[in-house]
Amino acid sequence: MTTVLKLGGSVITDKAQPETLDEANLARAVDAVADHDEPLVLVHGGGSFGHHHASQHGLSDTTGSHDPEAALAVHGAMGELNDAVVSALNECDVPALPIHPLSAGARDDAGEFAFATDSVKTLLAEGFVPVVQADVIAHAGRGVTIMSGDELVAVLAEHVEADRVGLCSGVPGVLDSDGDVIDRIASFDAVAEALGGSDATDVTGGMSAKVRTLLGMETPAWVFGIDGLKGFLDGESPGTKIRTDG
Amino acid sequence: MTTVLKLGGSVITDKAQPETLDEANLARAVDAVADHDEPLVLVHGGGSFGHHHASQHGLSDTTGSHDPEAALAVHGAMGELNDAVVSALNECDVPALPIHPLSAGARDDAGEFAFATDSVKTLLAEGFVPVVQADVIAHAGRGVTIMSGDELVAVLAEHVEADRVGLCSGVPGVLDSDGDVIDRIASFDAVAEALGGSDATDVTGGMSAKVRTLLGMETPAWVFGIDGLKGFLDGESPGTKIRTDG
Repeated sequence: MTTVLKLGGSVITDKAQPETLDEANLARAVDAVADHDEPLVLVHGGGSFGHHHASQHGLSDTTGSHDPEAALAVHGAMGELNDAVVSALNECDVPALPIHPLSAGARDDAGEFAFATDSVKTLLAEGFVPVVQADVIAHAGRGVTIMSGDELVAVLAEHVEADRVGLCSGVPGVLDSDGDVIDRIASFDAVAEALGGSDATDVTGGMSAKVRTLLGMETPAWVFGIDGLKGFLDGESPGTKIRTDG
Repeated sequence: MTTVLKLGGSVITDKAQPETLDEANLARAVDAVADHDEPLVLVHGGGSFGHHHASQHGLSDTTGSHDPEAALAVHGAMGELNDAVVSALNECDVPALPIHPLSAGARDDAGEFAFATDSVKTLLAEGFVPVVQADVIAHAGRGVTIMSGDELVAVLAEHVEADRVGLCSGVPGVLDSDGDVIDRIASFDAVAEALGGSDATDVTGGMSAKVRTLLGMETPAWVFGIDGLKGFLDGESPGTKIRTDG
């Protein structure tokens, strides 16, 4: 049973303080991962490490830069967060090793992402836990652009033929317009209104885009908060289950 | 005109002192690269950063480890050297970005190396200078093993269709048994005796293995010392030229 788990930037960092970990949540996440003994690929978002550098330099997944200082600011801050996650895991005997998408992938001029996963797949088969950071990546014609944790999750789930995908997020699941957790999502149309409509600006902290990405995968996915993480890794179904075949 | 240039670990580090740069040689190398305005991929060896961790943990290109501490010791030290090279280049307005082979490649169980170079090729096309470190990489059945700078040079030269390859080394070229620089090498047999014989232990600081690797490439290669670097980048032919077609 292979799992791809994303630790959201809003979970493991304090988004109110630049480049600050949420030590308590990171420790809870590490404990849950340390109790899990099946193949696992971790992905983490940017939180207060990556986002302010990205916005300061005007970078997004489509707007790029040829300024190496912009690329190094995001890549360096994300590398520090990655180091912190990898170190915390190794201190609890999880054999975690870092993966930097800037070294491993690129977008072509149509924006299509090619991500080499020989490294991730071989590390996984050898018993390591690859820890993949959100990052800048080379983008044909645009210099470098942002590669988000959510996009990495979708690509990695396909490459490693994951059985389950988990997004540990700052909220306990995908919320409806009353703020209640939606139990299951099988199509975007059914929840479009609750998520602000399919054409609306994404005011839900990226949840609308997340749901769309997860619905595009063949692997069943769950969105849950830090309280649901241990249960998810134990095979339970916390938060919102997202699967097109219901 | 695309060039792949390796800065040897014995050039840019002080091999007598653990994890110490040779600041003077690094500054000379950066100056030479800053004057070069055509596509360039840099590779660097381990020197006093990588080698002692590799030998301490018994790692080589064939002997691996499943201990994440061993992998992280080599990878972390090489990352520090890579950071120093990338920073020094950017301070002289060379748009250098880091590439970590651990993220980008792996060896299969026959030892064959698959290295994804979409990233390097796209960065190059976008005007950046990728700086690729010698590293640990995942190795099927063996955990992680060492990927040397020389092996990376050969793979990268092929992937980026390099016109010229340069190995800036601790010696002014490939030396014969009298210690004089051999001008040209077109086959291994012609120099095997000077290099200690084809079956001998490689007591020449790896030069015998380097020559064999370079003779296996389609691209012409030069081996030279730091004094030859500027000339090499200006299109001259310093040190030893290695090319099978003479």
